[in-house]
Amino acid sequence: MCAIVGIYGNDNAARLASLALFSMQHRGQEATGISSSCNGKIYTKKDRGLVSEVFTDEALQYLKGNMAIGHNRYSTAGGDSILDAQPVFAKYKLGEISIVHNGNLINKQEVRQDLIDKGAIFQTGMDTENLIHLIAKNTKDRLRDRIKEALTKTIGAYCFIVQSRSKQFVIRDRYGIRPLSLGKIKSGGYIVASETCAFDLVDAEFVRDVEPGEMLIFSEDKEEPESIQLFESQYRPCAFEFVYFARPDSVIDGKNVYRTRENMGRALARNDEKSEINVDMVVPVPDSGVPAALGYAAQSGIPFEYGIIRNHYVGRTFIEPTQEMRNLKVRMKLSPMKSLIAGKSLLVIDDSVVRGTTSKRIVKMLKDAGAKEVHFRVASPEIKFPCYYGIDTPNKEELISNNMSVDEVCEYIQADSLKYLSIDDLTNAIGNDRNYALESFNGDYFVKE
Amino acid sequence: MCAIVGIYGNDNAARLASLALFSMQHRGQEATGISSSCNGKIYTKKDRGLVSEVFTDEALQYLKGNMAIGHNRYSTAGGDSILDAQPVFAKYKLGEISIVHNGNLINKQEVRQDLIDKGAIFQTGMDTENLIHLIAKNTKDRLRDRIKEALTKTIGAYCFIVQSRSKQFVIRDRYGIRPLSLGKIKSGGYIVASETCAFDLVDAEFVRDVEPGEMLIFSEDKEEPESIQLFESQYRPCAFEFVYFARPDSVIDGKNVYRTRENMGRALARNDEKSEINVDMVVPVPDSGVPAALGYAAQSGIPFEYGIIRNHYVGRTFIEPTQEMRNLKVRMKLSPMKSLIAGKSLLVIDDSVVRGTTSKRIVKMLKDAGAKEVHFRVASPEIKFPCYYGIDTPNKEELISNNMSVDEVCEYIQADSLKYLSIDDLTNAIGNDRNYALESFNGDYFVKE
Amino acid sequence: MCAIVGIYGNDNAARLASLALFSMQHRGQEATGISSSCNGKIYTKKDRGLVSEVFTDEALQYLKGNMAIGHNRYSTAGGDSILDAQPVFAKYKLGEISIVHNGNLINKQEVRQDLIDKGAIFQTGMDTENLIHLIAKNTKDRLRDRIKEALTKTIGAYCFIVQSRSKQFVIRDRYGIRPLSLGKIKSGGYIVASETCAFDLVDAEFVRDVEPGEMLIFSEDKEEPESIQLFESQYRPCAFEFVYFARPDSVIDGKNVYRTRENMGRALARNDEKSEINVDMVVPVPDSGVPAALGYAAQSGIPFEYGIIRNHYVGRTFIEPTQEMRNLKVRMKLSPMKSLIAGKSLLVIDDSVVRGTTSKRIVKMLKDAGAKEVHFRVASPEIKFPCYYGIDTPNKEELISNNMSVDEVCEYIQADSLKYLSIDDLTNAIGNDRNYALESFNGDYFVKE
Amino acid sequence: MCAIVGIYGNDNAARLASLALFSMQHRGQEATGISSSCNGKIYTKKDRGLVSEVFTDEALQYLKGNMAIGHNRYSTAGGDSILDAQPVFAKYKLGEISIVHNGNLINKQEVRQDLIDKGAIFQTGMDTENLIHLIAKNTKDRLRDRIKEALTKTIGAYCFIVQSRSKQFVIRDRYGIRPLSLGKIKSGGYIVASETCAFDLVDAEFVRDVEPGEMLIFSEDKEEPESIQLFESQYRPCAFEFVYFARPDSVIDGKNVYRTRENMGRALARNDEKSEINVDMVVPVPDSGVPAALGYAAQSGIPFEYGIIRNHYVGRTFIEPTQEMRNLKVRMKLSPMKSLIAGKSLLVIDDSVVRGTTSKRIVKMLKDAGAKEVHFRVASPEIKFPCYYGIDTPNKEELISNNMSVDEVCEYIQADSLKYLSIDDLTNAIGNDRNYALESFNGDYFVKE
Repeated sequence: MCAIVGIYGNDNAARLASLALFSMQHRGQEATGISSSCNGKIYTKKDRGLVSEVFTDEALQYLKGNMAIGHNRYSTAGGDSILDAQPVFAKYKLGEISIVHNGNLINKQEVRQDLIDKGAIFQTGMDTENLIHLIAKNTKDRLRDRIKEALTKTIGAYCFIVQSRSKQFVIRDRYGIRPLSLGKIKSGGYIVASETCAFDLVDAEFVRDVEPGEMLIFSEDKEEPESIQLFESQYRPCAFEFVYFARPDSVIDGKNVYRTRENMGRALARNDEKSEINVDMVVPVPDSGVPAALGYAAQSGIPFEYGIIRNHYVGRTFIEPTQEMRNLKVRMKLSPMKSLIAGKSLLVIDDSVVRGTTSKRIVKMLKDAGAKEVHFRVASPEIKFPCYYGIDTPNKEELISNNMSVDEVCEYIQADSLKYLSIDDLTNAIGNDRNYALESFNGDYFVKE
Repeated sequence: MCAIVGIYGNDNAARLASLALFSMQHRGQEATGISSSCNGKIYTKKDRGLVSEVFTDEALQYLKGNMAIGHNRYSTAGGDSILDAQPVFAKYKLGEISIVHNGNLINKQEVRQDLIDKGAIFQTGMDTENLIHLIAKNTKDRLRDRIKEALTKTIGAYCFIVQSRSKQFVIRDRYGIRPLSLGKIKSGGYIVASETCAFDLVDAEFVRDVEPGEMLIFSEDKEEPESIQLFESQYRPCAFEFVYFARPDSVIDGKNVYRTRENMGRALARNDEKSEINVDMVVPVPDSGVPAALGYAAQSGIPFEYGIIRNHYVGRTFIEPTQEMRNLKVRMKLSPMKSLIAGKSLLVIDDSVVRGTTSKRIVKMLKDAGAKEVHFRVASPEIKFPCYYGIDTPNKEELISNNMSVDEVCEYIQADSLKYLSIDDLTNAIGNDRNYALESFNGDYFVKE
Repeated sequence: MCAIVGIYGNDNAARLASLALFSMQHRGQEATGISSSCNGKIYTKKDRGLVSEVFTDEALQYLKGNMAIGHNRYSTAGGDSILDAQPVFAKYKLGEISIVHNGNLINKQEVRQDLIDKGAIFQTGMDTENLIHLIAKNTKDRLRDRIKEALTKTIGAYCFIVQSRSKQFVIRDRYGIRPLSLGKIKSGGYIVASETCAFDLVDAEFVRDVEPGEMLIFSEDKEEPESIQLFESQYRPCAFEFVYFARPDSVIDGKNVYRTRENMGRALARNDEKSEINVDMVVPVPDSGVPAALGYAAQSGIPFEYGIIRNHYVGRTFIEPTQEMRNLKVRMKLSPMKSLIAGKSLLVIDDSVVRGTTSKRIVKMLKDAGAKEVHFRVASPEIKFPCYYGIDTPNKEELISNNMSVDEVCEYIQADSLKYLSIDDLTNAIGNDRNYALESFNGDYFVKE
Repeated sequence: MCAIVGIYGNDNAARLASLALFSMQHRGQEATGISSSCNGKIYTKKDRGLVSEVFTDEALQYLKGNMAIGHNRYSTAGGDSILDAQPVFAKYKLGEISIVHNGNLINKQEVRQDLIDKGAIFQTGMDTENLIHLIAKNTKDRLRDRIKEALTKTIGAYCFIVQSRSKQFVIRDRYGIRPLSLGKIKSGGYIVASETCAFDLVDAEFVRDVEPGEMLIFSEDKEEPESIQLFESQYRPCAFEFVYFARPDSVIDGKNVYRTRENMGRALARNDEKSEINVDMVVPVPDSGVPAALGYAAQSGIPFEYGIIRNHYVGRTFIEPTQEMRNLKVRMKLSPMKSLIAGKSLLVIDDSVVRGTTSKRIVKMLKDAGAKEVHFRVASPEIKFPCYYGIDTPNKEELISNNMSVDEVCEYIQADSLKYLSIDDLTNAIGNDRNYALESFNGDYFVKE
């Protein structure tokens, strides 16, 4: 997950970067950071917390210059998250450099071990440090060539933005697994961002997606970004961005995310048409289940109702429930609309089921609130395999669909019926022009070189 | 606005009060507080901030005892908001007392001036201080009698909970303008709260609404609360709770708030049936416009679509936009779904229009995003009069419908058409069994004695 | 304890008040507050914390006006200290009023009970609230007359500054127990402060002490403060200010505090002249024992040495020592100079002994560090009685000299010898022109009406 | 500057390290950090702030294990100080490693450039990173050999503690410029710390100084630390530690720091004996000028008086003085004892004069307070050269004694006379058994290989 942004050629570069990161806060809330570049010096500010907390006016004034890169971090396993925040800054042979990264390197450990064997030190657990080392060890004269060669040793699903004293290099892996789009800012310059929803607040117009395997180079010399095709493209955009991760108003690979989710809901509805379930209303698990539920309702003609309310005031720290108050965590976030659902049969739609714990609690909550029946529909296929391409899924053992059949899951979560979207329906919903990355569903780990 | 809660007869009183306040955070985010009572001593903790920030485990451990009252504060005009947070604690002749209050006293200034003339001092601007003074000045032997007489001098829309060392007194004004409900907690004791949505997290069952003009007394002597009818009831529940203020999953006066909002949307749709507008989709202004939009869509058959996304990460402090970035405030909270609405005719539904500024910005935002037409529908009548009964409306001069006709407002906000809900449709939508408080719409300021 | 300040007639009133409070931080570190007055409105800012933390530039900009009063609070027994911070603000019949107070009212409970019986409410535990009530209940037309009559009912050791919309009233009790001085600010206007050390940072010149029983009135009408003698003076300045509480560079009642402490040390030395103790050096317990130790050394000819170092980095919260690390609290603050004292006989001077616990730990620490002998000298008489006039002493039972003879205390603290200053020597050291308040030493509780 | 500590073989290792760092807070207040080692994993916690703020109980519980190293940081020029806090952690070929460092590497830039040329990256500005790189690049099998070879390339004044998963390596440079002492902890294990004042709170007994050029190795295999002489010793302890930097109760190279400062004062007095100045009292600039002033007073027979009071409540942020309130910064920290010094001739003693600005302000402050004459004495020689061995002195141009003669400085600071300690008197005062590092005074930059 995570979000990255690059702004080039605008006097308010850091401010625009902070607005773009703010728009992409859903991709990471743990830490955030920006590096700007001005007169041959790179300025960095990064810290734990939300974009609106870290980037005070004072911080933005420190971040001088007309180019900036930024990052939102999703989560860190380790202890001291500041050290694992991005951008990562370093001095190396050609000067100062700062890098942001979204994705996951498959051969990270091998590359790291190889570098360590040759005497490198690693101060963080971040993939980004790998790339800096590979760039620094390279002997080419031009940064672009060093990046190019560094990437030949780097296998994975990644988007990088590398900022030097006066240039920015934007790279998307050959598979284009993680999204990355280019926009033109009305007040001047360019933006590159993980999602197009970042373009609105900075008043930018969508130009095009960065191509799989492409490197864009922004420099003072050229008005337009230079484009170099580093690798032959084998386009495999990540289906999970459409299922859950992207903001519904973003456009990825030309597809409106919201519409694709509606389509997923429609497919679920079509699949239920022949069945004999008889429900009173379609109820989404908010917020992410809403578009699919709207699609299901539109397709089936069954009324759509907000049977579950989401509380947006859940802070980062709150009282730990006592023993007697178990199951409180889900209920603090989601509240059933009792008088709406009491005595009714519900068709509940969530975007995905990972461990099954939350689904189980939702079903119980709805039944406690008086629901007569709860038919659970999942707007994605069964997740049977962990994702190594940048989506934060748990170990294989913890994935409920790795351990149980659909029927078993249905019994576990105590639903009256349970259906998933088929893989075909999923790809149809997004658009059948692409060979999507579906490794979480079918175990096809195609990233190999 | 504001929210109040009382918990009586449960060993986790303060903890349950904090959960109830958390569920009613939408009624006030500026400050929060709880007073508990234990062994003849009252403990109070109040501070600026959200419930989840103020009530740490440490704070809850300090709040000992099996009874507690709590409050969420909406906003303060003045400087040092801590002093204006509730509960208000005082020592007086009969011992220690703590009070929370939701509503507004009409004759506050007169009572205050009279008390001041007789030598009283006021340390805050809160109505609550009035009541404590009236109770303290009274010469009756029993607190219940003092409260009763104090309230004969108090005109307004109010709910009070008064906590002494061992009892709680719950009072709702004769008009029942502000809501107040009684529940039974499964783990023991009772809860009284502004909204029934507070009952879920504390595992309480709705018993009944507190009656207009009723005083409930909780004491150790009796297992059930004692009920005294203080005043003859003239029930006038506030229509605005249904329009905007209450959480959709609450039940007020037996009506599910969500359903009443759906009804308002349906009425808007029926009103449009004969007209010739031709729109592609119904789009709510999230989150409060959603139920009415669902109702409109269901009634009219026009598809409901999430054409506007709401960003829930807007913190309390963030960078002030520069001159060039005006109108950013609305756009940081609301984002148009460009690819959904471009080239389309929209029927946009918001819950109410107060000053008109936000509506104007929303219309502009949608048109900038490519909407062909924007037909604006308001799920409440024109607000022509300020509310003095506890809803935070601006001065008469600032209310756009006080100054402009519907056509003029339509032109001001640059919509292609504009319609409000009629007052009759509003009351029909809520249920025609009541004589609702409608002063914001018709200027009927009925609270007089 | 506590410190108060009033600034009148200076455009930087709040800023100067904050500097004065900063200079008097030693009189109270728990909370601080300032009220300014501007165009008929009183502005207040108060909070927990040090002056340098609470009074940011933003806070000082809020505190508009050319008059201000301020307060540093020493400590609160209760829970929510913000509510017990000063100034105390109130609206009453003649308008707005704000009060700061240093001292202790003897008949506080009686007055409070009487007010409560008549229907008053008390929202805090502060004496200041008493005075506001008495002023508010009074029926005179002018505030000065109300204050005058209110004070006839008020027995105690006090200094008050009362600020209205346009005036300041400064009152010192008839005994002049707590110090209060008047200064003229070079940049315009006047300052009244608990200690003259507050005059330096605001560039004020000492004019004179406020007289016992005097009321000073600052108003726009008169260039100089008006003086009214409210009560017949019975001057009894507090000896403890000289012993311990005042900053050494302050001048109280015409006496330099530092010099009086030196005199106390000299008296201790004279008293030892005939004895046969043979010590290598005079060692103060820093910081408060230093002047007396210098006096002792000068008188006796025995070298003065800094045998104990004080660590000024002790914050308000730090790790609680584990079981094995007892006695750590004193040792984190005070460190013995091992190589200086090892094998040596020390004459250690502290300003006073209250419970004896700290003295015992100091003796142990010095012996552990190798001191051959530790002769303990106390630059004040035995504290046998609690102080009710504003110094924070514990209950009678906890005062070691209430329970033990000098010999017993000596054995308890494990010193090789122990001597106190006699009461006569104490008053001689300060200056024999006054009838000092000595109640902690001789139990003469003279404040009676 | 800065302070380092290592604890080995004690179950409370991190807790003891925090207490030691607390005792050495005077050597650095900007940031602090600790790395512990437990079961093959290194845990690190570092942050801005004081030791008492950063090391909460929670932080100490995270720092598991029976060995720990820690650091206090003096100041950073750059922006984001967290990244420049120590310890510095890294993974390298032999596993995990964490390092703390006190001092300055002379050939830092050359080594860094050389490493960079070979492909290394540097993420911070810290010397410590150099050493990690040199260790990582080395090809020896044992860490001790890698450290040894790394140090052959490292020229400077340094103390390092390197912690691996199970061992600690302590190194002091061949000149022994920065102090480092070994102690035995009563509750088990060893401590190594920059100053012996750290031994008291952890209940450790001084064993001996770490020798110049020595490496101590702590491991589980051996009960006592192993000692390896890495380099031939050329002992040149830093004179400035005695002049200003060390805490007075520390013992460096067998000399009690406080006593050496007294000796410096005595030497100043002897030098004045023949002169005709006639002063009333010796006044130290607190706190660092006190011991020399005591020595001067004892030698000359002139009374020692605390003519200047130091305010210890100066926080890190406080109101910026307005234009009219210039010179406030010194006066907020230091207050003249007016009634003591008015009309008197003072001999003022400070430990050193760097830029001259503070001295000038002190003289002005004393004269404004009424001092008749101010004779300034400096308990160290003229500082004519910047220190490159770890003391934070400004550029040569900013050193007043680089630009002015003694007479000129005297006129600049407006003193009535000015004398410095001679270099001979300085070394005599410390003890004539050593060839001290005096580069700030005589420009002898002896560290060359």
